[in-house]
Amino acid sequence: MQDVNIRQPIAVTMGDPAGVGPEVTARTWAMRRDYDLPPFVAIGDIAAIAAVWSGPVARVADMEQVARTFDEALPVWHLEDSGPLTPGIPTAAGATCALHTLETGIGLTRNQASSALVTGPVSKSALHGIGYTHPGQTEFIAERCGVTATNAVMMLAGPTLRVVPLTVHIPLAEVPERLTSELIVAKARIVARGLKRDFGISMPRIALAGLNPHAGESGQLGNEEERIMRPAIAQLADEDIALEGPLAADALFAPGIRDQYDAILCGYHDQALAPFKALHFHDGVNLTLGLPIIRTSPDHGTAFDIAGQGKADPGPTIAAIAMASRIASARERSCAPAK
Amino acid sequence: MQDVNIRQPIAVTMGDPAGVGPEVTARTWAMRRDYDLPPFVAIGDIAAIAAVWSGPVARVADMEQVARTFDEALPVWHLEDSGPLTPGIPTAAGATCALHTLETGIGLTRNQASSALVTGPVSKSALHGIGYTHPGQTEFIAERCGVTATNAVMMLAGPTLRVVPLTVHIPLAEVPERLTSELIVAKARIVARGLKRDFGISMPRIALAGLNPHAGESGQLGNEEERIMRPAIAQLADEDIALEGPLAADALFAPGIRDQYDAILCGYHDQALAPFKALHFHDGVNLTLGLPIIRTSPDHGTAFDIAGQGKADPGPTIAAIAMASRIASARERSCAPAK
Repeated sequence: MQDVNIRQPIAVTMGDPAGVGPEVTARTWAMRRDYDLPPFVAIGDIAAIAAVWSGPVARVADMEQVARTFDEALPVWHLEDSGPLTPGIPTAAGATCALHTLETGIGLTRNQASSALVTGPVSKSALHGIGYTHPGQTEFIAERCGVTATNAVMMLAGPTLRVVPLTVHIPLAEVPERLTSELIVAKARIVARGLKRDFGISMPRIALAGLNPHAGESGQLGNEEERIMRPAIAQLADEDIALEGPLAADALFAPGIRDQYDAILCGYHDQALAPFKALHFHDGVNLTLGLPIIRTSPDHGTAFDIAGQGKADPGPTIAAIAMASRIASARERSCAPAK
Repeated sequence: MQDVNIRQPIAVTMGDPAGVGPEVTARTWAMRRDYDLPPFVAIGDIAAIAAVWSGPVARVADMEQVARTFDEALPVWHLEDSGPLTPGIPTAAGATCALHTLETGIGLTRNQASSALVTGPVSKSALHGIGYTHPGQTEFIAERCGVTATNAVMMLAGPTLRVVPLTVHIPLAEVPERLTSELIVAKARIVARGLKRDFGISMPRIALAGLNPHAGESGQLGNEEERIMRPAIAQLADEDIALEGPLAADALFAPGIRDQYDAILCGYHDQALAPFKALHFHDGVNLTLGLPIIRTSPDHGTAFDIAGQGKADPGPTIAAIAMASRIASARERSCAPAK
């Protein structure tokens, strides 16, 4: 049994070396004391840090060095040289480095050398250019962990709101046919389990947003609520999972109403992410539930347009590392032997 | 030419007598000085005020009396007795009173006895029970004003955000087919004109949210952006209307991005209203553009569950009256003869 005080460091992948990942990682380290962050290691091309930051860096070769050096310097696990680097300009070598970085982060976390994985932003189009075929990082991580894409559930979590889009990167026109009772049941189970295990909420209260305006207004404005959502809610009730709804998606996000729920399940991407980003753009965390490992991510892209200019906000990375750390603590507590 | 200092009072319909309309109207009057509100008159059943409020009331019979009494008592234009009244329990007589109240408010505003119309919440199902066939109040007002439903444009306006749903009360599955280039062009023209005339913005900057996640990601996640939205934007550009987009609907609502636009046009109800209510549930105003009269409304329903309990928030009604007053001033200025 490992002592919780010597928990393994967190693995932070820097993502695309030409994006804002390296600089927000370095600036997060610089603010480690303000936010009481646990030791973490930046994985990627050490030159990507040097290109955007002049603070102290410690090149490390194992996790023990991370804990030893973290107070004095940003520990960097240098993986490979990604070639000539200009912040803001993605290259094939950079995309290859980002992919190897992700693979390394997953590997370290799966074998428990790191206690959690925090993934920096990658360029999907640069990755697709080198033959990567997954829609995003989450699907790749799920596959490496032996979890089907359906069972890897994206949650966006901020200080006052957690949302889960039940469908994600599909055209809006396909949402009504893709949203099934089975999908809702499967994802709600994973969300309920995640809220219990990772957030310490013993009886999670979850809301389901209606698909149609005013949650269909008793069938006047669409029937998915009656046909698809109510049977799913009934089945979950039999399993003692409290999913309430379907509720009108607009009023549900009002203060005083959203606060009543530990998470809100939404039918599609923008129904969840538009109100979430309106409230938690600077401190929202993208969290993947249903994996054997802990995985969080700052909820923003590579932002090539501002990379290397010192403008990128480290807030989301700070939030992602802090949340990964809290979840690691919650899992340790739940696994600790009773005294 | 009327002096702006003796502008006509604002007509406030109390909506369903058993809803929260009467009490929020009375409490708004009680706070008239805190918010520097102009004279207004509450229209409806005077007994609905008496049932929920013990403050001073002046029963008025014409608009001159409103201005004279407003400082000392809430002016009420008593229309008809709506029968035995229990707050929270709608009746057919109450719905009839609400409808006559709306008709009266429209009539007073159309003939300029009142400078603007602020409509309180009605019960759609109670109205449908007495043979009312319009989907909401807006369509009825538009018809009475001789404006087609398409040209009466719903805008939700708050202190930091204005949104316009391009489609409103239809099932989500019908949105992709109902959203046409013609619809976008027609509504964007009305929004641009409204922002100029009613908000005094000489060169409005308007954003168009994509229909699909990430605004379709270059066609990977749906083609409505290329097929429907871009042609509309091009046509509007020919008319010197600056409609930008289509932009990813989630990031568009982030602070720092939403602030760049005077209004955001959205493809459907929840894309607009979920982030709007997340931000402006207590001070959001429902405004109808494209009408010959000024019409605003607090953006909430009858709230029968809390009616008569003193819990209803007058904030939205205060905001609706204040906005109607500002718009009336803007229109007066734009109509004043050049000096």
